[in-house]
Amino acid sequence: MMTFTERLAERVLGGMRPACVGFDPRLDALPGTLAAGASAAERIVAFAREVLPAIARTVPAFKPNIAFFECHGAAGFDAYETVCRLARDAGLLVIGDVKRGDIGSTARAYAEIHCAIADAVTVHPYLGRDGVDPFLEFARSKGCGVFVLVRTSNPSATEFQDLVVGDGETLADAVASAVTGWGRELVDRFGYSAVGAVVGATWPTELRHLRSRLPQAWLLLPGVGAQGGRIEDLAAAFDARGLGALVSQSRGVLQCFSPTDRDWLDRVESALAAFVAGFAALSPPRCPPT
Amino acid sequence: MMTFTERLAERVLGGMRPACVGFDPRLDALPGTLAAGASAAERIVAFAREVLPAIARTVPAFKPNIAFFECHGAAGFDAYETVCRLARDAGLLVIGDVKRGDIGSTARAYAEIHCAIADAVTVHPYLGRDGVDPFLEFARSKGCGVFVLVRTSNPSATEFQDLVVGDGETLADAVASAVTGWGRELVDRFGYSAVGAVVGATWPTELRHLRSRLPQAWLLLPGVGAQGGRIEDLAAAFDARGLGALVSQSRGVLQCFSPTDRDWLDRVESALAAFVAGFAALSPPRCPPT
Repeated sequence: MMTFTERLAERVLGGMRPACVGFDPRLDALPGTLAAGASAAERIVAFAREVLPAIARTVPAFKPNIAFFECHGAAGFDAYETVCRLARDAGLLVIGDVKRGDIGSTARAYAEIHCAIADAVTVHPYLGRDGVDPFLEFARSKGCGVFVLVRTSNPSATEFQDLVVGDGETLADAVASAVTGWGRELVDRFGYSAVGAVVGATWPTELRHLRSRLPQAWLLLPGVGAQGGRIEDLAAAFDARGLGALVSQSRGVLQCFSPTDRDWLDRVESALAAFVAGFAALSPPRCPPT
Repeated sequence: MMTFTERLAERVLGGMRPACVGFDPRLDALPGTLAAGASAAERIVAFAREVLPAIARTVPAFKPNIAFFECHGAAGFDAYETVCRLARDAGLLVIGDVKRGDIGSTARAYAEIHCAIADAVTVHPYLGRDGVDPFLEFARSKGCGVFVLVRTSNPSATEFQDLVVGDGETLADAVASAVTGWGRELVDRFGYSAVGAVVGATWPTELRHLRSRLPQAWLLLPGVGAQGGRIEDLAAAFDARGLGALVSQSRGVLQCFSPTDRDWLDRVESALAAFVAGFAALSPPRCPPT
């Protein structure tokens, strides 16, 4: 069984940039001419069908946020499953950005469906290990990847995540240390664990520091582009092989056009090319963690 | 517009016990004879149709956990909407136990659907105010209730929630104080805010302490019964009118039978009666918060 992290590492070592395209399909940001008159869920799937080939040619990973599907009810959930399947069929590694977090049998119910639909998922840490354990079981048995929220990209991330919990350590630091512990038994042949961490690309200083607390974790770095994060500030997240971090951009790629633009797909392809070109700023120096 | 908290207060002041029945429909715990051969989603809806009349006669509130629906995909999501609608039609106040937590437009997408399906929802605090704000907008405009996870009922709740963040204050305390601030502008005519808190009934000592930090919050108290919480230990959560807390029991009511029991509905009705009878232990003394 090839795990999520092994497949990701192989693609990066094979020459792909460690880039992930986020898919947050807001209806008011879809191309106006695409599947006009169809249902919301149908329009989202139609959009995915158009953009997935270009995405799969350019980057190894795809991160749909389920909220933008779920808000359309059951048809939206069905569209989420369809889009994930289409993306996997296109060769992409799919990270289900579901941010689930519950306990015991409830967490298991979430893990069962979301580790089946996607190759990896995002989860909340607030409930402690009980909330993560069922996902670790799927990491062990199915090779699923798990990204725990550690330092999120939003402005109010500081509200709780920066609270000092002793010895100058923040809550985010404590969660990072726990993530390292949770993932210790699940390390792949590249030295990385199935248990990764979400760290906002909007916090390069914290990123360098958290990298040292998370020596075996893949870091999922959202917040590049519209939220202000810049690829050139993220060098410390990568090891000398270029592994260990995956930079995610959403709006900057798939909302780079106006709904009225007739050439929207050309614009998406240009934005994809610009996204991966941005990684040139990292090499050299693609530094090992400090 | 009557808000969620006002409707809840009126029912309790009208004589109903501040009790909530949690609905965690695990397939292996459903009555074996009910809708045998039907799909998972259909079996769950059939079970809800059978138990909702008795629940609505006995308690004011109903808390379905969406994980046990979502694990069946789109059909499960559809069943969740159906069960919530049936419960509201039966006169119950529905708390959607969705534990969502994301930011910005993503959180808004979650709030749009979940505040439409249910009367109140549960949310994660880890992302700070950005993740809660869109729900507050629905509290303001639609009277939706919002329960923020503060001190959860599970054993590993202590892992992060008990970390000391300064001045002897724990992370749960800090989240509680934030909840009080977030809800300050949304206080109803009974003195309670639309922004409540989830505090596990498994932690009576912490409950007394958190009550003082959350003077205007309805406390949702899960964990009675199977998880070990006891109603008689929860007196400190209520004010002198008997308002301010809602005790939730799930497995002890709706999983009180074996799938082979032919008299399962009688057993559920007996368990419901025992649940509300348990509140007699609270009065007197139904103490105001200390």
